[in-house]
Amino acid sequence: MNLLGRRDPSIYGTTDLDTIIDDLSAYGRGLGASIAHFQSNSEGVLIDKIQEATNAFDGIVFNPGALSHYSYALRDAISSIDIPVIEVHISNISARESFRNISVIAPVCIGQISGLGSESYRLALDYFIRDLGKLNSDKDESI
Amino acid sequence: MNLLGRRDPSIYGTTDLDTIIDDLSAYGRGLGASIAHFQSNSEGVLIDKIQEATNAFDGIVFNPGALSHYSYALRDAISSIDIPVIEVHISNISARESFRNISVIAPVCIGQISGLGSESYRLALDYFIRDLGKLNSDKDESI
Amino acid sequence: MNLLGRRDPSIYGTTDLDTIIDDLSAYGRGLGASIAHFQSNSEGVLIDKIQEATNAFDGIVFNPGALSHYSYALRDAISSIDIPVIEVHISNISARESFRNISVIAPVCIGQISGLGSESYRLALDYFIRDLGKLNSDKDESI
Amino acid sequence: MNLLGRRDPSIYGTTDLDTIIDDLSAYGRGLGASIAHFQSNSEGVLIDKIQEATNAFDGIVFNPGALSHYSYALRDAISSIDIPVIEVHISNISARESFRNISVIAPVCIGQISGLGSESYRLALDYFIRDLGKLNSDKDESI
Amino acid sequence: MNLLGRRDPSIYGTTDLDTIIDDLSAYGRGLGASIAHFQSNSEGVLIDKIQEATNAFDGIVFNPGALSHYSYALRDAISSIDIPVIEVHISNISARESFRNISVIAPVCIGQISGLGSESYRLALDYFIRDLGKLNSDKDESI
Amino acid sequence: MNLLGRRDPSIYGTTDLDTIIDDLSAYGRGLGASIAHFQSNSEGVLIDKIQEATNAFDGIVFNPGALSHYSYALRDAISSIDIPVIEVHISNISARESFRNISVIAPVCIGQISGLGSESYRLALDYFIRDLGKLNSDKDESI
Amino acid sequence: MNLLGRRDPSIYGTTDLDTIIDDLSAYGRGLGASIAHFQSNSEGVLIDKIQEATNAFDGIVFNPGALSHYSYALRDAISSIDIPVIEVHISNISARESFRNISVIAPVCIGQISGLGSESYRLALDYFIRDLGKLNSDKDESI
Amino acid sequence: MNLLGRRDPSIYGTTDLDTIIDDLSAYGRGLGASIAHFQSNSEGVLIDKIQEATNAFDGIVFNPGALSHYSYALRDAISSIDIPVIEVHISNISARESFRNISVIAPVCIGQISGLGSESYRLALDYFIRDLGKLNSDKDESI
Amino acid sequence: MNLLGRRDPSIYGTTDLDTIIDDLSAYGRGLGASIAHFQSNSEGVLIDKIQEATNAFDGIVFNPGALSHYSYALRDAISSIDIPVIEVHISNISARESFRNISVIAPVCIGQISGLGSESYRLALDYFIRDLGKLNSDKDESI
Amino acid sequence: MNLLGRRDPSIYGTTDLDTIIDDLSAYGRGLGASIAHFQSNSEGVLIDKIQEATNAFDGIVFNPGALSHYSYALRDAISSIDIPVIEVHISNISARESFRNISVIAPVCIGQISGLGSESYRLALDYFIRDLGKLNSDKDESI
Amino acid sequence: MNLLGRRDPSIYGTTDLDTIIDDLSAYGRGLGASIAHFQSNSEGVLIDKIQEATNAFDGIVFNPGALSHYSYALRDAISSIDIPVIEVHISNISARESFRNISVIAPVCIGQISGLGSESYRLALDYFIRDLGKLNSDKDESI
Amino acid sequence: MNLLGRRDPSIYGTTDLDTIIDDLSAYGRGLGASIAHFQSNSEGVLIDKIQEATNAFDGIVFNPGALSHYSYALRDAISSIDIPVIEVHISNISARESFRNISVIAPVCIGQISGLGSESYRLALDYFIRDLGKLNSDKDESI
Repeated sequence: MNLLGRRDPSIYGTTDLDTIIDDLSAYGRGLGASIAHFQSNSEGVLIDKIQEATNAFDGIVFNPGALSHYSYALRDAISSIDIPVIEVHISNISARESFRNISVIAPVCIGQISGLGSESYRLALDYFIRDLGKLNSDKDESI
Repeated sequence: MNLLGRRDPSIYGTTDLDTIIDDLSAYGRGLGASIAHFQSNSEGVLIDKIQEATNAFDGIVFNPGALSHYSYALRDAISSIDIPVIEVHISNISARESFRNISVIAPVCIGQISGLGSESYRLALDYFIRDLGKLNSDKDESI
Repeated sequence: MNLLGRRDPSIYGTTDLDTIIDDLSAYGRGLGASIAHFQSNSEGVLIDKIQEATNAFDGIVFNPGALSHYSYALRDAISSIDIPVIEVHISNISARESFRNISVIAPVCIGQISGLGSESYRLALDYFIRDLGKLNSDKDESI
Repeated sequence: MNLLGRRDPSIYGTTDLDTIIDDLSAYGRGLGASIAHFQSNSEGVLIDKIQEATNAFDGIVFNPGALSHYSYALRDAISSIDIPVIEVHISNISARESFRNISVIAPVCIGQISGLGSESYRLALDYFIRDLGKLNSDKDESI
Repeated sequence: MNLLGRRDPSIYGTTDLDTIIDDLSAYGRGLGASIAHFQSNSEGVLIDKIQEATNAFDGIVFNPGALSHYSYALRDAISSIDIPVIEVHISNISARESFRNISVIAPVCIGQISGLGSESYRLALDYFIRDLGKLNSDKDESI
Repeated sequence: MNLLGRRDPSIYGTTDLDTIIDDLSAYGRGLGASIAHFQSNSEGVLIDKIQEATNAFDGIVFNPGALSHYSYALRDAISSIDIPVIEVHISNISARESFRNISVIAPVCIGQISGLGSESYRLALDYFIRDLGKLNSDKDESI
Repeated sequence: MNLLGRRDPSIYGTTDLDTIIDDLSAYGRGLGASIAHFQSNSEGVLIDKIQEATNAFDGIVFNPGALSHYSYALRDAISSIDIPVIEVHISNISARESFRNISVIAPVCIGQISGLGSESYRLALDYFIRDLGKLNSDKDESI
Repeated sequence: MNLLGRRDPSIYGTTDLDTIIDDLSAYGRGLGASIAHFQSNSEGVLIDKIQEATNAFDGIVFNPGALSHYSYALRDAISSIDIPVIEVHISNISARESFRNISVIAPVCIGQISGLGSESYRLALDYFIRDLGKLNSDKDESI
Repeated sequence: MNLLGRRDPSIYGTTDLDTIIDDLSAYGRGLGASIAHFQSNSEGVLIDKIQEATNAFDGIVFNPGALSHYSYALRDAISSIDIPVIEVHISNISARESFRNISVIAPVCIGQISGLGSESYRLALDYFIRDLGKLNSDKDESI
Repeated sequence: MNLLGRRDPSIYGTTDLDTIIDDLSAYGRGLGASIAHFQSNSEGVLIDKIQEATNAFDGIVFNPGALSHYSYALRDAISSIDIPVIEVHISNISARESFRNISVIAPVCIGQISGLGSESYRLALDYFIRDLGKLNSDKDESI
Repeated sequence: MNLLGRRDPSIYGTTDLDTIIDDLSAYGRGLGASIAHFQSNSEGVLIDKIQEATNAFDGIVFNPGALSHYSYALRDAISSIDIPVIEVHISNISARESFRNISVIAPVCIGQISGLGSESYRLALDYFIRDLGKLNSDKDESI
Repeated sequence: MNLLGRRDPSIYGTTDLDTIIDDLSAYGRGLGASIAHFQSNSEGVLIDKIQEATNAFDGIVFNPGALSHYSYALRDAISSIDIPVIEVHISNISARESFRNISVIAPVCIGQISGLGSESYRLALDYFIRDLGKLNSDKDESI
């Protein structure tokens, strides 16, 4: 499983991002999953990582930060790979500035979780671990 | 905990809604929570239920169906109560018709989960059961 | 066959709605069809009736009144049933206020008839009685 | 005279709505008018009440809450009756979220009063009691 | 009665347009009406025919094809004649590309029928034959 | 109390503006208030008067006429003073041309009254005289 | 006849505005008309002049300059008087910045002439002198 | 000089178009100009005539009717010729439906005259006859 | 192969259109293709030619001129035929007025070439001659 | 040098505007420049001053307040004079209400400075004093 | 000649991008041109390459992928260099999602080719090799 | 103090960017400030630098080039640091293409300076050096 994203500034101050990642990795291992993680401020580097992930991982938990709202290049990268992606946001993006209300990436992800703090990551991870088998067999009919 | 919503037509055929509700109730009880549920096609009845919930429940998992996209009255009902609401959708509303891309209810919920099938309900329930204590103490700083 | 709708205020004064319904029922019976009818001012009740109609009727003639212009919940109800619906309006909705120029329900109906007074109902009924067999076999290619 | 509306959440906490209604009824009776009142969260029920009011009342003081901003069905109900309606809001709807800046009901009312708390109701009532005779004779030329 | 329009490409393959016209002419004659028909791909020629129709016909059944969506010149031609026009479309124009959702011609027609295949023509013809007398006497009050 | 505004052309012919002002002044004096009034066609002069009013009056009843719809300079003047302003309009601005549906001044007033003829002025005056004490103590919680 | 307007900067350099006014006055007198003229940079002063003109002149040739594009107050002034106004512009306002393409004043004038230099004024004057009698008797049917 | 255009339906009934053309031709001849005229309902034929006019005429008085609002092909034809064009409209297009408020042809004409009935034609003709010499020498600086 | 279009005014002056057509025909013949060409200013005639081309040609190189930006009728004609169409423009339509940035015809063509002068035609022709066989077998997977 | 503007309400309370003007004048004199200043709430008076400034000053530091957002008349005045204008704002207009995000005056100024309090004035003044000679010689190439 | 771009996901599966590049290089060499190529997922790196290209190449064939639709930084890079750029797309961007219909880069390129698969690259290359001399001498008049 | 930005192409040709940076550094040192500078074409690298600056500098003078108009990621980076940022542009971005009229970064900067050439940098630097102490104590009340 891959945790991918930008360092979300809204998490600073409350909990250290490394602590969150460590907790999530431990949580995943406890459920029998192995977790990788990667952060970058660069759209191009994130796209490289998404393209490399297709053979290496079963799913991606992706926090694109503000790139959600304009990076059609990220969108194309996600739609060109064969593994499912869940978009997560720590804050409730619908309750903030109007430019944050639309994610151009969401249409090519399988789902989104937002507003639930670092639990947004954990619930997405939980979904993949519990439901990935079910997802693979169900996805045709769920569309 | 209250599961509230409209009968989402996209669930018909795959799994029976009653089976889903039963599973969720059993899941909740297994974690020590008691679960109520209510479905209606009427905006007015849903608003009544939301207003009554404020003293009876610790949180609401709410699937407003297509009312998400225009019911400012539901929005006002949610913003007038004191307990947290998570908006859930079975399908990925960002990947469907453009009118479904905006939820007028999302800004007054604490978060949204969409696109993950009946797991959207379970993850929201899970969040409330595990994190409600944490939510109550943290919510000032997370806004 | 089901005649469903809201009491359209533009018909008041000229002809009594009950007279129109009676005339249409008699017309239908003369062509060998049985006709039911139902009016409500409530979106939720209309959705209930649409969901119940799927096994009980061969088609619905539906005058949604002003709900045409914003009720995505009615739209979802219509698209979740297996029988064809024709949207009818007594007045020419294209010749009135601009908010009436778009029907959010029309894309999930098979067709619309508007502006022809109570004849809008009769022509829709006529279509179903004469053409329903043809519709069932043709509808794949007509899309 | 009829006081009609939705329970406006912004009034909770300061004054009890029943107290306000009692005060207004007493105020009206003191001026020789009889006052009825009705609240519902349901658009359909409000429309039923508006349609029934045409023979029973001389005017309606109507607080449609958030339905103001999208209920074209309420608009049609108001425009189909023969008695005057004044739209009232407790809060200043122009100073809140942008979706509240337009009332789709206002064009078919004779006037609006907003932002003056529970006085919005009383001033509308006062207008009807003092001015109803004048209104009936003047309304052609005032348009 | 005049059947006027552009050759609608959506009818090709299923039924021959000439067959449809022949059937409609026969249907009309059976009800005592004489039917003329005319097709052209040219906006200018269609406008000429509309302007000539005013003394020659009692009504026009008009399928403007894609010209519906931008030809204000057709609109002016229709609004300058004294006989009623019904706009017909074989396909459901509300269920196709967004540019087809608005007809600039509809506001100056008396009504529209769309989505019912070649029956759209027949029902419009039926309306004129049965209801033309009624239309002439009623049209002031129905607006 | 200050009655401020532009000469609203819709009042000409029915009642003389001076008569209305005289009636309002008499009405105010009868309730123990002293009333000043001022009219100008100049945005700049109206802004001067608003800025001067802050120490001289307890409230302003302001009819900005068509300046409501574009004068952000009037808006800034109102928001820079410490006394409450009520925006009034003689006609129902929501029922006229679309450019009149938005007032750029309304968000910085405490409320609006429109559509009730010269009573719009009197009701605003009445509000200030009866409710000004209540307003001053309540305004924090009513926002 | 009244020539009213703002000093249009596009005329500077080529011909002196006073020379133009003198030529127009001489032209008018030659045709038996008396001409007044007035320029101001102030919207309020122009409105005062328009309101005073109603009894003093038979028509107004009005160059509102950039006020054309936002002064709804000028629009109200023109629509409240009983004499006809022609809007003139020296430059072709349709060929310049997009904000100049809409005149909010044009709908309440009887016509516009733009792009023809100082001839825009003379042709409007010519229209009034030759056609004013005809205008008064025809204006009902020309609308 | 060339009078070109579509038969404007708003002129029917009052004066016969042929009478107007005859009057204008006589008026032009009286001033020493020779006048040709041409009407067509076809955009393509009008474009042909515009392209042919460049060597045959000194200017074009053009009433494009409703084609003004969408015919970018007419616009390209006008901008590709070397002689000046004035756009004329019999009615005040700014005072009618909103789609008539923008002319896509106006930016490539030298000016427009609208709302002055058949005088719109005569004034444009007058401009060309009196001012064409002046136009040719001035046009660089007037832009 | 068919070269179809409107006479593009931007080519005048540099090279004669007939010379270009002759050069293209010679170029095509040199590659073993036979070339037809047709120009018209009339949308209706262009539609006729497109409909006739389906059996006569293997492909169409089409320069629709300004009709690109509004002719939904041309769009329907192209989408109703079975042979591929490439849209060409001599000038770079993205670098000109904003109305030229959208082609309503492009979505039903297989591709576009713009901005490369008369080479836009030759490259499209070259594509068809070299690649038509490849196109026919590949087109399902390239969509 | 001319300091021109409206009294910006956001400066009240912190520092007295007269103190700021005195400080700026002293600062300018210290650098060898003479400074004039003028404030008015009237758009017309500001336009008069701008038109008079062209021969009297080398540059204008202009705070148009809320007139920035709609006064096309101010824009025309600035673009008709020969001396450079810098637009200044005390507050950061991009961080306030959305109507403040666009200045219609900015395109005809040479530059803008906003958000830096009374320093916005001083820096603009500093630019003119240090750089005016450089500006005059460079301005052709900097556009 | 420089082939620059992002790895376009739509080419995966059909033909290997390296094969296409090899074929194009061979094709170019056969015509006497030397070809360089470069791909990156990073906007910043692409901008660096564009800025370096100005002295090293005679032209750029550029496939910006989804960056076409929002990268104003790429646009500025292209407009700051002295060599011509042709934008190419493998798929027909006009026939896909609406966000792909506008390229912000197109206005600063000399032309675009889209929808013709890997031939889009070859035709652009062909244009440069055959026409570059002609382009340099013609480009002033073609604008 | 940190000078950060993209290489603005509009500066090429007049003055060398390195010369400007050298001049600014010397100017800053003369006033007792130490200046760092950094340029990159990569959004991700600029974000890295902004995040690192918070402990290393007292303020940032930032020229984001075209990234101003779409990089919400830069916006988030600026709003997550504790030191003030001034946005500068060499050219007047309000006088260029419409996409340049809005900066998505401006709302999270303390101010902007644009259009004043390389002086835009120097004035921002000057502000920080002279006013930083004042800013720190004043910033609460200036918002």
